[in-house]
Amino acid sequence: MRISELSRRSGRSIATIKYYLREGLLPAGCRTSANQADYGEDHLRRLRLITILLEVGGLTITSIKIVVDAIDDESRTVHEVLGAAHHALALRVATPVALPEHDEAEAEIDDYVRTLGWNVKADAPGRRELAAVLVSLRRMGWRIDAGVFDEYARAADQIAAWELARTPDDADRTAIVEAVVVGTVAFETALVALRRLAEEHHSAARYQHR
Amino acid sequence: MRISELSRRSGRSIATIKYYLREGLLPAGCRTSANQADYGEDHLRRLRLITILLEVGGLTITSIKIVVDAIDDESRTVHEVLGAAHHALALRVATPVALPEHDEAEAEIDDYVRTLGWNVKADAPGRRELAAVLVSLRRMGWRIDAGVFDEYARAADQIAAWELARTPDDADRTAIVEAVVVGTVAFETALVALRRLAEEHHSAARYQHR
Repeated sequence: MRISELSRRSGRSIATIKYYLREGLLPAGCRTSANQADYGEDHLRRLRLITILLEVGGLTITSIKIVVDAIDDESRTVHEVLGAAHHALALRVATPVALPEHDEAEAEIDDYVRTLGWNVKADAPGRRELAAVLVSLRRMGWRIDAGVFDEYARAADQIAAWELARTPDDADRTAIVEAVVVGTVAFETALVALRRLAEEHHSAARYQHR
Repeated sequence: MRISELSRRSGRSIATIKYYLREGLLPAGCRTSANQADYGEDHLRRLRLITILLEVGGLTITSIKIVVDAIDDESRTVHEVLGAAHHALALRVATPVALPEHDEAEAEIDDYVRTLGWNVKADAPGRRELAAVLVSLRRMGWRIDAGVFDEYARAADQIAAWELARTPDDADRTAIVEAVVVGTVAFETALVALRRLAEEHHSAARYQHR
């Protein structure tokens, strides 16, 4: 299809598509003349993937490039591509100024993750994020240790077990990595949206009048 | 205390503190001379709250202003302040370009929320976010309805019930609203970090070698 049809079917402007082509997010079409190229269903699919990462996930163009490069690198396992998506999601929030308490908190989180029995890399960004939460809450005067995360860890483990059991195992690599990447990004947004709605519901009962 | 001590105890630079004062995030100190003011423990506390919203929550200065204004407005109930925090969190991701499918998806989400029996406002941003997830996944070819959120909704409901039961009910208004705002922001970050770690754990078992 021509770029105009790709634009119509994807709902993205021609200018946006050209920008993605220049940034290497979208592979070049097949040249049919000096100033015309042909695009296929794969391009449409990739464009929709980029749109989810951008609009639902809130990723930057730079982060999306890292994710699509990982998807396109056939030597990377599905597990590694998921790791790339997680790194991209973590990049959305600026790393806080490291306080002296951070190192100690990171060691506590490492212990905590070990207690949970989770097999996660030493540089998984989630560890640093949990440590930052711990440090910030303590600075607000909360007397807490990593056990404060127990309820969340239990819920997260249930959700993740269910999610991974649901992703395809028999499809080709591209279909699997796409489903895994889209799943982690889209359902993160869904989970936090649902938590806020549920909080509103429970808060209405408790705090409506004060 | 002087601004220099406030800076030392909070770990934020004097320039940053002055910026927050100008933006109205931090109330003015008590003038002790033409170019000197005195700050109290409340200022330190507010500064730590701003830091959590900024560094852990990833909120913008504009959004933080909305939240602190709600906190400071004694006529707003705790429930309303929580709503302000939820709106601020939702603002982090740009509203996607509205597609024709969005209206239909929003109606489906409204039905779904009704089915869950949750008492949430018609303009709760979570509804729009869930509809956007539904639309984006369908455009990727996923044949799904709102039931795809069931596992997440169950987990979110358990978490929120536990969270709200845990927030103080007997403290003064300021202490309650602070705890509720800090809780919703900090534990959202913790929950998504834990979900990613749990996904990595379950993915390691399933996809390590492919």
